[in-house]
Amino acid sequence: MSTKIKINENYKNLKQSYLFSEIARRVRAFEESNPEKSVIRLGIGDVTLPLPAVAVRAMEKAVNEMGEKATFRGYPPEQGYDFLREAILARYRSFNVDLDISEIFVSDGAKSDCGNITDIFGDTPACVPDPVYPVYLDSNIMDGREIVFAEGDESNAFLPTPGGLKERPYIIYLCSPNNPTGSLYDRAGLGEWVNFALKTGSLIIFDAAYEAFIEGNDNPHSIYEIDGAKECSVEVCSFSKFAGFTGARCAWSVFPKSIKVGDTTLNALWSRRQATKFNGVSYIVQRGAAAALSEKGISECMANIAYYKRNALLLADSLSRAGVWFTGGVHSPYLWLKCPAGVGSWEFFNLLLVGESLVGTPGEGFGACGKGFFRLTSFGSYENTLEAAGRLDVFFKKGF
Amino acid sequence: MSTKIKINENYKNLKQSYLFSEIARRVRAFEESNPEKSVIRLGIGDVTLPLPAVAVRAMEKAVNEMGEKATFRGYPPEQGYDFLREAILARYRSFNVDLDISEIFVSDGAKSDCGNITDIFGDTPACVPDPVYPVYLDSNIMDGREIVFAEGDESNAFLPTPGGLKERPYIIYLCSPNNPTGSLYDRAGLGEWVNFALKTGSLIIFDAAYEAFIEGNDNPHSIYEIDGAKECSVEVCSFSKFAGFTGARCAWSVFPKSIKVGDTTLNALWSRRQATKFNGVSYIVQRGAAAALSEKGISECMANIAYYKRNALLLADSLSRAGVWFTGGVHSPYLWLKCPAGVGSWEFFNLLLVGESLVGTPGEGFGACGKGFFRLTSFGSYENTLEAAGRLDVFFKKGF
Repeated sequence: MSTKIKINENYKNLKQSYLFSEIARRVRAFEESNPEKSVIRLGIGDVTLPLPAVAVRAMEKAVNEMGEKATFRGYPPEQGYDFLREAILARYRSFNVDLDISEIFVSDGAKSDCGNITDIFGDTPACVPDPVYPVYLDSNIMDGREIVFAEGDESNAFLPTPGGLKERPYIIYLCSPNNPTGSLYDRAGLGEWVNFALKTGSLIIFDAAYEAFIEGNDNPHSIYEIDGAKECSVEVCSFSKFAGFTGARCAWSVFPKSIKVGDTTLNALWSRRQATKFNGVSYIVQRGAAAALSEKGISECMANIAYYKRNALLLADSLSRAGVWFTGGVHSPYLWLKCPAGVGSWEFFNLLLVGESLVGTPGEGFGACGKGFFRLTSFGSYENTLEAAGRLDVFFKKGF
Repeated sequence: MSTKIKINENYKNLKQSYLFSEIARRVRAFEESNPEKSVIRLGIGDVTLPLPAVAVRAMEKAVNEMGEKATFRGYPPEQGYDFLREAILARYRSFNVDLDISEIFVSDGAKSDCGNITDIFGDTPACVPDPVYPVYLDSNIMDGREIVFAEGDESNAFLPTPGGLKERPYIIYLCSPNNPTGSLYDRAGLGEWVNFALKTGSLIIFDAAYEAFIEGNDNPHSIYEIDGAKECSVEVCSFSKFAGFTGARCAWSVFPKSIKVGDTTLNALWSRRQATKFNGVSYIVQRGAAAALSEKGISECMANIAYYKRNALLLADSLSRAGVWFTGGVHSPYLWLKCPAGVGSWEFFNLLLVGESLVGTPGEGFGACGKGFFRLTSFGSYENTLEAAGRLDVFFKKGF
């Protein structure tokens, strides 16, 4: 039986991604044929360390509050509880960024916000980096929006600039530290984008999900550290990578009230969108997230991040020893390497799997500009990553 | 500074709702002028009893699992964990409804699903009941969709039929037991809608959020109890009212694979939508939801629902004694009464507040067909509801 309702025809323009299923298939086949080999996965894009203890205790307490009539809480505010929004504001103040509580919208994930934000836009073209986190691309394809790519390559160290873009308004997606390339915009680099946005009337959607991996305060943790950004930038950030909340689900977005669109503000539009299509984040999870932003919480989170960063350095050192060109490895859990000797992404994948029982992610899975590049991640255990770094040394010494 | 990006112009067609803020304003003013009066709120649309103990224990355990490396869980499956989807399937089997696990999509709320579902639709008109849960209406206004109203009134006991509709494909929203009217479709009533949908190629979005309030199994708990519904109906349901999860956040939707649209299925479209714009529900919350669907969990949930239903009966009895026409009160936490003597919704609100210090919700806040009607809810405490029922007796005896 076929209904006769019309569907969103834009969905037909989405490409099916077989990246991770194809990787899984090849690894499975290899493991079946080589049961004696110990395969190490450097393709994990998810955290593996447990939640910080203060967050666990806060969530335990919140769960029990929900079990008592006197402390039970029903529908949460759609924008998030003030106790969490205040904690987020304090985090921004540590970067010398002052925001108003009404500019913070707590949500269940940066992916949800990045995906849902197109709801409030008209037919302004999107400017999306290549390589790219697929959500920016697919959510705009679903909306039938014209898409322009800002290309990353070796010459710009995978930090595209607005230089080649026609001057007109865009919805610009930026992610720094970047997934998948690990590259980080410095103040000058982000400043170029902010200036371009101000000049052209564009809007920047800045994905800061990996902000906590940035070493020190020389580089911007938030786009609002850049002059003028509050007039042209929405920032999306998450507890996923900062506090290991990928399975707990909590994030936030910042919609500065200073961003006017016609006779309204982007803040008012998003507020209306969320009040209509969202009902807030679990009280239990919000308590955990707020605890992660306490002094003790931040220190526990940073210890976990230091663990991943030590892994990243092991891999970075191995690539450096081999003279392999790469981005990331510092300020990021990701390393993005140029496959040596003109080897293709998938060919490199096979060589690394068969030769050293190591699994990574072919760069071309993240866009055309990823061809000939390869992503390694540092979310595994220290022991495995150390072993993997040794195998990489052997692998690159063999030559191509 | 104004950006030059285009916004979704449909947002300009949304009406600002001042319903609940206006109620709050009037109640505040009354309480300030009459500090000696004890105001009882019969306008609460949120649960007030704590979570079932089994759910609390399950969530406590899950929180602690997340704090240990060996049991930590990262990104959940976008469609929900199988342990919860299996529990949902078992719930449907108790209504003699057989579904496949791939047809169940766990989410953070029925509001999210009801709001986000328009993403996958083209420009087929929406058929929305009046009075109505505002999300059905506003999400379609945001999408610029033509909207046709199915009008509820005294003659159809606020159970609109497809009788007066032009025969063409619609996206039809139904909610039973209904919010705000408390009215319940029987098998014949739902059957009329299913037959209309099959005949016209329409799709029904069936909101079963209040299903657990239905007494016995004579009336349908799920639209899939109706022959043919699997060919034309999506069902949205929630743990909010069943298990008191309004603050914990968990729901699900059913997309039968048998609903074809062109050369794809609605299931495949929703799956793609969720994989792109959603990242699953918190593991902790899913464990609590699964526990609520255990035998012990269901019995605890039903005890809470019995508490609210006893309240509803107190109010229903009072309305019956006064000879007031109303729907709901059984199978529902809501009562929807006709304001006597041609009194308007807001006038009735004022009379009830000033006369008896009782607060309810003017029906016209839910649509034009709500004019002259008024909603009472049973989510307060037994003691307050008993007292309120007594005040209603006095109120109606005074006459208008």
